[in-house]
Amino acid sequence: MNRIIYPGTFDPIHNGHIDIASRASKLFDELIFLVAVNPDKNPLLSADERVQLILDSTSDIDNVSAKKFNGLVVEYARKYEAVAIIRGLRHVSDFEFEFQMAMMNYHLNSDINSLFMMPDEKYIHLNSTVVKDVAKHGGKIDDFVPVPVKEILLSKFE
Amino acid sequence: MNRIIYPGTFDPIHNGHIDIASRASKLFDELIFLVAVNPDKNPLLSADERVQLILDSTSDIDNVSAKKFNGLVVEYARKYEAVAIIRGLRHVSDFEFEFQMAMMNYHLNSDINSLFMMPDEKYIHLNSTVVKDVAKHGGKIDDFVPVPVKEILLSKFE
Amino acid sequence: MNRIIYPGTFDPIHNGHIDIASRASKLFDELIFLVAVNPDKNPLLSADERVQLILDSTSDIDNVSAKKFNGLVVEYARKYEAVAIIRGLRHVSDFEFEFQMAMMNYHLNSDINSLFMMPDEKYIHLNSTVVKDVAKHGGKIDDFVPVPVKEILLSKFE
Amino acid sequence: MNRIIYPGTFDPIHNGHIDIASRASKLFDELIFLVAVNPDKNPLLSADERVQLILDSTSDIDNVSAKKFNGLVVEYARKYEAVAIIRGLRHVSDFEFEFQMAMMNYHLNSDINSLFMMPDEKYIHLNSTVVKDVAKHGGKIDDFVPVPVKEILLSKFE
Amino acid sequence: MNRIIYPGTFDPIHNGHIDIASRASKLFDELIFLVAVNPDKNPLLSADERVQLILDSTSDIDNVSAKKFNGLVVEYARKYEAVAIIRGLRHVSDFEFEFQMAMMNYHLNSDINSLFMMPDEKYIHLNSTVVKDVAKHGGKIDDFVPVPVKEILLSKFE
Amino acid sequence: MNRIIYPGTFDPIHNGHIDIASRASKLFDELIFLVAVNPDKNPLLSADERVQLILDSTSDIDNVSAKKFNGLVVEYARKYEAVAIIRGLRHVSDFEFEFQMAMMNYHLNSDINSLFMMPDEKYIHLNSTVVKDVAKHGGKIDDFVPVPVKEILLSKFE
Repeated sequence: MNRIIYPGTFDPIHNGHIDIASRASKLFDELIFLVAVNPDKNPLLSADERVQLILDSTSDIDNVSAKKFNGLVVEYARKYEAVAIIRGLRHVSDFEFEFQMAMMNYHLNSDINSLFMMPDEKYIHLNSTVVKDVAKHGGKIDDFVPVPVKEILLSKFE
Repeated sequence: MNRIIYPGTFDPIHNGHIDIASRASKLFDELIFLVAVNPDKNPLLSADERVQLILDSTSDIDNVSAKKFNGLVVEYARKYEAVAIIRGLRHVSDFEFEFQMAMMNYHLNSDINSLFMMPDEKYIHLNSTVVKDVAKHGGKIDDFVPVPVKEILLSKFE
Repeated sequence: MNRIIYPGTFDPIHNGHIDIASRASKLFDELIFLVAVNPDKNPLLSADERVQLILDSTSDIDNVSAKKFNGLVVEYARKYEAVAIIRGLRHVSDFEFEFQMAMMNYHLNSDINSLFMMPDEKYIHLNSTVVKDVAKHGGKIDDFVPVPVKEILLSKFE
Repeated sequence: MNRIIYPGTFDPIHNGHIDIASRASKLFDELIFLVAVNPDKNPLLSADERVQLILDSTSDIDNVSAKKFNGLVVEYARKYEAVAIIRGLRHVSDFEFEFQMAMMNYHLNSDINSLFMMPDEKYIHLNSTVVKDVAKHGGKIDDFVPVPVKEILLSKFE
Repeated sequence: MNRIIYPGTFDPIHNGHIDIASRASKLFDELIFLVAVNPDKNPLLSADERVQLILDSTSDIDNVSAKKFNGLVVEYARKYEAVAIIRGLRHVSDFEFEFQMAMMNYHLNSDINSLFMMPDEKYIHLNSTVVKDVAKHGGKIDDFVPVPVKEILLSKFE
Repeated sequence: MNRIIYPGTFDPIHNGHIDIASRASKLFDELIFLVAVNPDKNPLLSADERVQLILDSTSDIDNVSAKKFNGLVVEYARKYEAVAIIRGLRHVSDFEFEFQMAMMNYHLNSDINSLFMMPDEKYIHLNSTVVKDVAKHGGKIDDFVPVPVKEILLSKFE
C-alpha cells in the first residue's frame, strides 16, 4: 500500500490545501495530513482544532486522515510507513524553502521522497496568513475556505 | 494500475534524469519516458537514439520504458492511461517554466496531474546542454552521464 | 489627456493581454497597443495581421487602438505623447526582463514611466508561444484567445 | 477624477517611496499615502509620526496627501473612491509578495486595480528596515531619506 | 596584505560556512569571521560561544580568526583594514538579501567591495536554523556541523 | 601571485563590465579578460575586435589584459595559473545561470573557485544585447559604454 503524508501547520486549512489533498489522494492509497504543533509559530488555532477542521473539510474524501506531530517529518513518515511527502508549490519563494526542506529530509532519510504539486490557479494567491488577515478585518472569505473554517475564524475574530 | 509519464527532450539523458526516474518508479507501478521529437530544438541526437540511450541507461529498473512523442503531453498521457506527469525541478527558472506547463496541461485535461521531484543535490547543476558543451571541449563527463551516453557523445564530438 | 502605450510582439494577442488592456484602459484616457515588427523573432503572423487581430479583439473597448512600431519604445511614446508604458507581469522571469527594460527606458527618457499590472489568475499561465504550440498540436484554445485569433491560428496550422 | 492610493507601513518614508509617489502623482489627479497602523509589526514610529513625515517630505507635490488606516486596503480604496492601488517593486521577493496581495485584493474588490512602478535604480537597495539599522549604528543616511526623517531617526537613536 | 572579513550570525557555524572560509582563505592573506552579536535575533548561542566554535572548527586553517561585532559591517571592515567582505550564496533568496546589503555597504563605504562564493553542492541545503531544528528533534547532524558544534547543540537541547 | 580571469562574450564590453574589472583588479595582482570566441552565438563583433575594445577601454588599469579563448573556462584558468574566476551578478536570472556554471566548473577542477561581484546600481540594467539594440535604433549610449565601443557600434549600425 502506498501511503503519503502531507505535513504543514494548517492554521487553518484552506481551499488550496484541499485542492492538493484531493488530487494527491487519487494517486496514492492513503493520505495523512500531518499537523505540526508548532508552538513557536504562535498559531491562532490549537493543533486539535486544526486537525478537526481538516477532518471536517475533507470528509468527502475516503482515504484521507489527519494527525498531529511534533518533531521531524521524516520520523513521522517512517512511523506511518509513508512512501513520500507531498507539498504544494505556489511561488518561487515556496520553491526555495521546500527545496531546502526536501534536501534536508532526503539526507535524514533517503527512503522517503518529497513530491510537489501545484494547486489550481484560482488558489495560488491563498495562504493561511492572508486568509486570517482578511477575516480579522471583516472581509469575505467564503471563496477561500470551507464552511467549518469560516465559522471558527469568524468566532475567533468577532 | 498507476502509470506515470516522464516527458522531456532527453538530448541526452543524464544522471539527474536517472535519479528522478529511479525514485519515481518506486512510487508508481510503471514509468514511461516520453521523448519529445522536437525537431525545432535541433537536437544533437535523433529521437530514436535518445530512446535507446534511456533504455540502455535504465535497464536495471524493471518498470521503466521509453517512447517517442510529438504533440501535446496530455494527449499521450491519456493514450497511455497515465495518472500523472512527473518532472524534475532543480532551479527557480525550472519552476517557473514547469508552473506554466502544468497550468496549461491542467486546463487541457484536468484528470492528469503534474508531480515534481527534486534530484539529489549532486545532480542539480546538470543539464543536457552543459553536458554536451563539456564533452565537446574534451572535459570529463564520467560523473554526469552513464557509460552509453558518454560513448555516443564522444563519438559525435571526436 | 493621459494616453498610455502597451508595447509587445502580440504574436498573437491572447486573453491575458486583453485583460490587461481592458483594465488599463479604464485608468487612462487612451491606450495604444504598439506592435513590435520584430523580424528577428521570426513571428508566425505579420505585423499587420497582429494589429488587425488586436483591433478585432478589442472592438468593444472604445479608447483602444493599435499601431506597428520598429525601434525604441520610448521614441514611440514621445511620438504619441504617451505619459506611460503599461506592461503585464505574470512571473518572476517577466519581472526581471521588464525591470531591465524599464530601467533602460527611464535612462533614455525619464519623462516616460513604466507601469505594471498583473492579469487575472486565470490568465497567468498564458503566453503566445504556448498558445501557438497547443493550437499547432490540435489542442483546444477557446479559453485562451478570442474567436478571430482562434480562427487565424487554426488556418495557419491546418 | 482619478485618485490612487499608495498603501504601506512607511516606518519611515524614504527616498524610494518619494520617487514612486512623485512619478505616480503626475499620472493621476490625486495620490493618497495610506499609512498602515500595523501595531503587530511593532513600528519604530507612531502612525501619526509616519503620516506627518510623509506630509513634510512631500510638501512640494500638490496632489499628495496622507492618511492612517487599519483594515483592508480595498475598503479604504472604496472609501476614498480610488481607481487603483500603486506599489513600488524593487526585487523578486517584493514581486511575489505584491503578486499575492494584488490577487487577494482583486478577489475582494475587482473594481480596484493594482499598479506597480519601479523606482530609480539609485533607490532599489533602500528599505525602511535597513535605513533604521544604519541610523541606529551611526551610519550616514543623508542620501536615503529627506531631512525631517533623518532628524527624527537621529533623535530616536541618540 | 589583503585581508577579508566574513560577517554573519553563525548561530552556530556549519559545514557550509567552513567550506566558504576554507576556499576564500586561499585567495587572500587573512580572513576574519565577524560574528554579529545580534541580540534582536535572539540567538541560541552567546556571541562568545559562537566565536569559540568558529575558532575550534577552523583551527586547521592558519590565516583565519574570529571576532565579535555590533554595528555596521563597513565600519569593522575599515577598522580591520579589510579590502573586501565575503559572503556565501546558496539560493535566490540569499542573493536578493545580499544584493541589498552589498549595495548599502557600497554606499556607506565604496572602498570596500563585497565578494560572493557558492559552497559545494552538498552544503547548499544547510542553514543554521534547520541544523538547530534537526538537533532539537533528535536528528543526526554529523554531516552538517563539525564535532564541537554538534556537542554544544546536543548539550543545549538535551 | 594571485591572478584571476574574467570570462565572457563581451560583445561588446560595457560600463558594467568595466566597473567589475576595475574593482576586482584592486583585490588581485592581475586580471585577464577571457573573451569567448562563441561562434554559435553569432556575435556582432569578431573576437579580435572584442579583445581590442577591452584593451582600449581598460588602458588606465595597469594589471588588466585580455585574451581570446575557445573551450572550457577551467582549462584556461589552469593554463593561465589563475586562482579564481570572477563574474558579475546583476539579477536573479544571472544568479541561477552562474550557479550552474560555477558548480560545473568546480566539478571539472575543484582548485579553481568562482567569485562574484555586484556592479554599481547604475549599471545593473546594462547588458550587451540591450546596448546594441539601443545603438541600432539610434538611441544615445554614451552613459553605457566607453568611447571606443560607442564608435564601433555606430559604425556597424550606420
